[in-house]
Amino acid sequence: MTNIWVKNFAKRTERMQSSTIRELLKISNLPGVISFAGGLPSPDVFPVDEFKTACQYILDNCADQALQYGTTEGFTPLREMICERSGRYGINIQPKNVLITNGSQQALDLIGKVFIDPGDKIAVESPTYLGAIQAWKVYGAEFVTVESDKDGMIPESLEAAMGQKPKLVYLLPNFHNPMGTTLPLERRKRVIEICHEHQVPIIEDDPYGQLRYEGEHIPPVVKLDADLRGNDKDDYQGNVIYLSTFSKTLAPGLRLAWVIAPEEIILKLVQAKQGSDLNTSTLVQYLAYEVGKGEFMDQHIKLIRKVYGQRRDLMMELIDELFPSEVTYFRPEGGLFLWVTTPPKLNTQELLPIAVAQKVAYVPGAPFHPNGGGLNTMRMNFSNASEEGIREGMKRLSTVLKSALV
Amino acid sequence: MTNIWVKNFAKRTERMQSSTIRELLKISNLPGVISFAGGLPSPDVFPVDEFKTACQYILDNCADQALQYGTTEGFTPLREMICERSGRYGINIQPKNVLITNGSQQALDLIGKVFIDPGDKIAVESPTYLGAIQAWKVYGAEFVTVESDKDGMIPESLEAAMGQKPKLVYLLPNFHNPMGTTLPLERRKRVIEICHEHQVPIIEDDPYGQLRYEGEHIPPVVKLDADLRGNDKDDYQGNVIYLSTFSKTLAPGLRLAWVIAPEEIILKLVQAKQGSDLNTSTLVQYLAYEVGKGEFMDQHIKLIRKVYGQRRDLMMELIDELFPSEVTYFRPEGGLFLWVTTPPKLNTQELLPIAVAQKVAYVPGAPFHPNGGGLNTMRMNFSNASEEGIREGMKRLSTVLKSALV
Repeated sequence: MTNIWVKNFAKRTERMQSSTIRELLKISNLPGVISFAGGLPSPDVFPVDEFKTACQYILDNCADQALQYGTTEGFTPLREMICERSGRYGINIQPKNVLITNGSQQALDLIGKVFIDPGDKIAVESPTYLGAIQAWKVYGAEFVTVESDKDGMIPESLEAAMGQKPKLVYLLPNFHNPMGTTLPLERRKRVIEICHEHQVPIIEDDPYGQLRYEGEHIPPVVKLDADLRGNDKDDYQGNVIYLSTFSKTLAPGLRLAWVIAPEEIILKLVQAKQGSDLNTSTLVQYLAYEVGKGEFMDQHIKLIRKVYGQRRDLMMELIDELFPSEVTYFRPEGGLFLWVTTPPKLNTQELLPIAVAQKVAYVPGAPFHPNGGGLNTMRMNFSNASEEGIREGMKRLSTVLKSALV
Repeated sequence: MTNIWVKNFAKRTERMQSSTIRELLKISNLPGVISFAGGLPSPDVFPVDEFKTACQYILDNCADQALQYGTTEGFTPLREMICERSGRYGINIQPKNVLITNGSQQALDLIGKVFIDPGDKIAVESPTYLGAIQAWKVYGAEFVTVESDKDGMIPESLEAAMGQKPKLVYLLPNFHNPMGTTLPLERRKRVIEICHEHQVPIIEDDPYGQLRYEGEHIPPVVKLDADLRGNDKDDYQGNVIYLSTFSKTLAPGLRLAWVIAPEEIILKLVQAKQGSDLNTSTLVQYLAYEVGKGEFMDQHIKLIRKVYGQRRDLMMELIDELFPSEVTYFRPEGGLFLWVTTPPKLNTQELLPIAVAQKVAYVPGAPFHPNGGGLNTMRMNFSNASEEGIREGMKRLSTVLKSALV
């Protein structure tokens, strides 16, 4: 009987594919496998006690609202909290500029729904975030790839890519997923100028901005863009849609993130979200607000920085110490990932089953390249495994790499 | 600057509109307004104590998992629980046939993403659920309207509609939103035969199935269809995608629902959901499982039936007693809604501001009609307001109707 269904699939389903990473997560969750594959935060830094207190408080004091349907835009005190916290980074906005989403992945999907017609081109780095490729391909996006180096997107390459008339530019300026790179201030300014000149809006995806382990904070693109155009504090009208999330600062199991954009764009995204799921879990929004308000979040982020910073340092040390010398990597100033390049003769996708047999996993870099390439690259997550796990996993992986390079 | 964005909107945004109902909810939430407008469950029956106990248990015992990313398909014990509970209604399925979604609205969206190409036709009743119209219009669906009466969809009209070659048939067989009608057994069987004959799959949307206040349970279409084709218990391969939700039995603020479908369809919906939001809140899924497992849910549903059943009875009595005699309504055997028809000279949309000025609200029926009509109809929710609120609100509304009919 099933063909009654399959013959009715929409054309866009041909562009759908299971995420390599999510399929890999299943393999890498096998018992005994030390996984550097996912992008999972560490449960060691989940604020469990604070969630417990918040649950009790909410269910004692505002269960009627927290368990009811909510507005599509999101819980107002949470949106106000986001405005207040964004203000510290120079992002001057009002709650009307904020939409709450089910993780940044939903923000990417809604952006696709609102902006992408089949055949539209999006300028992205190669590699870029796999979830964005997956979300936008479904709407028929094609990708114009922009070159990058250890400092992220190369402005000259973006300038050249403008010849292909992209509709949007997608940026991950802080601790890029998967490359770990950070776009320096001058490049940010140059990218803004280029986009302004060609009248192409920017999507700034910033899930890890607060997780910096070395170096100085660089203002987000959304702020620099607003500065350049002399933004009115009460009416944000920039050229940037900015995305961030509570997944890496509170917990990913909430599925809670936000979009910052001009009001007119928020209104359109709200219409798209109404049809998509009415509203994000009200209870989860109350929880994030209760845990996130006040001083706690800032202290907690310091703890996360410390833990993840140590794990990053350890993983880099172990690459230097154990990996074959032909293997190189970018030094990430923050975030969750190390981007590793092996000699061209290695194919990291073919190598993965061998690694998994040795009870260690990573993500091959190829799927992050929307138009191909990157066969000898891999992304390694340093936030999830314990220090002991990192030591043991890196030992196993170095053996795999050495054997393959003989 | 905003036109840099607006000129980049995708064509499908022309088909997006803010839901009349959600906009109305904002008005009807004004202080002092008694609202029959929303589809809101009553906080009086939210199982707050059970949620409190569940939160503590989960955060004490499985916080590491409940706060982490989860699989796109959903939390396995929750999917197993859904299989077990579905089995009681004769729906024999395995966890591979279940996908967890953010409310049924997300299920409708994912179905649209997977099945609807621009210009595809969907056979629906007129009126039908507004959220389905909204979800599917965005993907370019057109609607073939099928006639209905107090017993729901009329099979002969569906047969005639098949001439227009719809891709899917959308049914709300139990306590229809907005009409409150229930499709009798013989009509269910006839609809299944017609769809089988024309090889058109059915979407069965059943959010209220367990909320029956009178009459006998009628087997769901998904079960009757499986019976007809002699379904293999271990491999559901029916002609029906079935949707249901925890919004009306536990709490809508969870945003938690599920899809039942052949495995091949679930796999495709999972791919669509990966791009849409990775997974539904893990924490919320653990919560629903903890509260819903065991005996509690069955007892709790009895309580809900009692409370809502009394409110339904009261609202019907008050219509009989207070409303002008030319006003008619369908008697709903369950669910949340009464469907009211006024004499044709009344336009319920024009009447609404007058009602809101008198501090009472309802939803005009017109937006539920995908191809127009229903100007003299309205949907009234009886679950949300207290009995006292219903008494007072019906008094106010009867005055508004009487004045308008003078």
